[in-house]
Amino acid sequence: MAIQGSGDSEKGFCCPIPIEQYPQVLLAHGGGGKLMHQLIEKIFIPSFQNPRLEARHDGAVLEIRNQRLAFTTDSYVVQPLFFRGGDIGTLAVNGTVNDLAMCGARPLYLSTGFILEEGLPMDTLWRIVRSMKAAAAAAGVELVTGDTKVVDHGKGDGVFINTAGIGVLEHDRTIAPAAVKPGDVILINGDIGRHGIAIMAAREGLAFDSEIESDCAPLSGLVQTLLGAGIEIHCMRDLTRGGLASALVEIAEVAHAHIRIEEKAIETREDVQGACEILGLDPLYVANEGRFVAFVARSDAERALSLMRSHPLGVQAAMIGTVSDDPPGLVTMTSRIGATRIVDMISGEQLPRIC
Amino acid sequence: MAIQGSGDSEKGFCCPIPIEQYPQVLLAHGGGGKLMHQLIEKIFIPSFQNPRLEARHDGAVLEIRNQRLAFTTDSYVVQPLFFRGGDIGTLAVNGTVNDLAMCGARPLYLSTGFILEEGLPMDTLWRIVRSMKAAAAAAGVELVTGDTKVVDHGKGDGVFINTAGIGVLEHDRTIAPAAVKPGDVILINGDIGRHGIAIMAAREGLAFDSEIESDCAPLSGLVQTLLGAGIEIHCMRDLTRGGLASALVEIAEVAHAHIRIEEKAIETREDVQGACEILGLDPLYVANEGRFVAFVARSDAERALSLMRSHPLGVQAAMIGTVSDDPPGLVTMTSRIGATRIVDMISGEQLPRIC
Repeated sequence: MAIQGSGDSEKGFCCPIPIEQYPQVLLAHGGGGKLMHQLIEKIFIPSFQNPRLEARHDGAVLEIRNQRLAFTTDSYVVQPLFFRGGDIGTLAVNGTVNDLAMCGARPLYLSTGFILEEGLPMDTLWRIVRSMKAAAAAAGVELVTGDTKVVDHGKGDGVFINTAGIGVLEHDRTIAPAAVKPGDVILINGDIGRHGIAIMAAREGLAFDSEIESDCAPLSGLVQTLLGAGIEIHCMRDLTRGGLASALVEIAEVAHAHIRIEEKAIETREDVQGACEILGLDPLYVANEGRFVAFVARSDAERALSLMRSHPLGVQAAMIGTVSDDPPGLVTMTSRIGATRIVDMISGEQLPRIC
Repeated sequence: MAIQGSGDSEKGFCCPIPIEQYPQVLLAHGGGGKLMHQLIEKIFIPSFQNPRLEARHDGAVLEIRNQRLAFTTDSYVVQPLFFRGGDIGTLAVNGTVNDLAMCGARPLYLSTGFILEEGLPMDTLWRIVRSMKAAAAAAGVELVTGDTKVVDHGKGDGVFINTAGIGVLEHDRTIAPAAVKPGDVILINGDIGRHGIAIMAAREGLAFDSEIESDCAPLSGLVQTLLGAGIEIHCMRDLTRGGLASALVEIAEVAHAHIRIEEKAIETREDVQGACEILGLDPLYVANEGRFVAFVARSDAERALSLMRSHPLGVQAAMIGTVSDDPPGLVTMTSRIGATRIVDMISGEQLPRIC
């Protein structure tokens, strides 16, 4: 019954990404842009084919004995390990909590797998574990199972953490990219770009006028507020790797919809904007760890917005766009001066290893 | 709501592993022996305290809406990526399937998190993904959600894979180390030591007389056979890192029981034994990936053994020992010549990165 790992690529099943195009994995294959998209679409989805992967959601929604559960995983490889507003431990808890929340689930349980590099200071591990404990308590989840591996010095990078999560869906809605409808209104819970810039500042030792903190936070409480009030949510997505732009492009493609956003409705703090200009970045593509978009029925939009604004993580919530049916699979943005441009996925990588 | 990762070790919560003892993480902290045990007991369990971690089981058993589920995770960092009898992909599927099986669950769903090193040949990734697909099909599980990260060249080691798994418990038994009782009989499903030796052979380019294959296989079918027949199983444990010896020592400690095993009942293939002698290893501590022990009520032992032997993965099943209550927390082995010795956990690491 042992399954031989003998590359069946030798037997005629060639790698679907042509060797002459990308013979090797590049950093950009993990960056949330076009190359990562290609990896997922050409290698992972066709191999592991099942309807949950094909939903192209932040997690899988499963039904076990008439109970709908969400299941999701993320590995965290952020560098540096500690930054303003959090560390790899807070990120590993909040990131997975947020993916469960985006599925419309109440997060319950997390697993945690550590890959430690030989030579990591024991106290660094201890600080990270303490952060995970605090983040789990704040998000109301339990860390119930785990694993630790150690790799030789020079074969890792301090600490990598994987968390997987289980949550429970306490409603009957279908919340997924494919459920987005023409007429939907797009809400966001605040300003964009802070996490990516906080990481860049910590990494490069840049000193900006203002000290920018990551927005890293658990979104489950805010999402539960919306769901509990019966808001007709069709889709949610947190704005991590690839930022707001990549999230919207992915959803427009899966939903075969046209997403139109207004630049002036999207808040970017002045110091974040300034840092982006210095670094040559577009805040639309910069990662966030406490921001999400919700696609809601127009009839519920005002009520949803006011609920979001009454929550500490949604004080600056705004309506940033709408959905129509034509042209399908496209995101366009009306700029401050009224011009319209197409918003695309970036092909490379703006900021490697931001989560 | 952002949670500051500001090392509270500075504020009086010192790392519980004294800096002067282990200032840094060592390879042995991941080896399945005493140091890993210390890391789990001193850092992880006290921080994430909850009854599921305290069960010291291969996974967590959760109850969601009256349905008992098992949830587990493992990261795989094996080197080399390909070896006789499997690869990191088969291991990542079977290892997590087996941990669910050891909880008495029927494995259903896996998540998969890849950490790729920049420069990994795309075809290598493709071969691994194909192996995962085949292993998942053989074990009857679905890969439903995933994540990919890429780290800079020199900051990883080809591929690391995390899988987490969900299974369902279809019976009312409590299967856990604490459920082991005096009078229990210990069964094993076959010979030991093949996985560790297959990895060492691949790594060191050693040529042994016989070509030793890993025993890597999904144990869920065999376990379902036992459970389906109503065998009174009190505990199961797969014999991975640290091998048979470490598994038994852990169970003896948690169950406050005395485990006595018979050396002559434990099968080791002649070529594996020979390789162990050349490498200075004790097969009792060498990792397996398709072997487990089951603690069963004496009244069911014969029936369990015959069920195991009728399954392809249990042809060589054997009764290797018994449980008594005194002295508690101890494993002893009667040697071939009738002498008795204490079996302890190894303090260091026999074989780093075997899974």
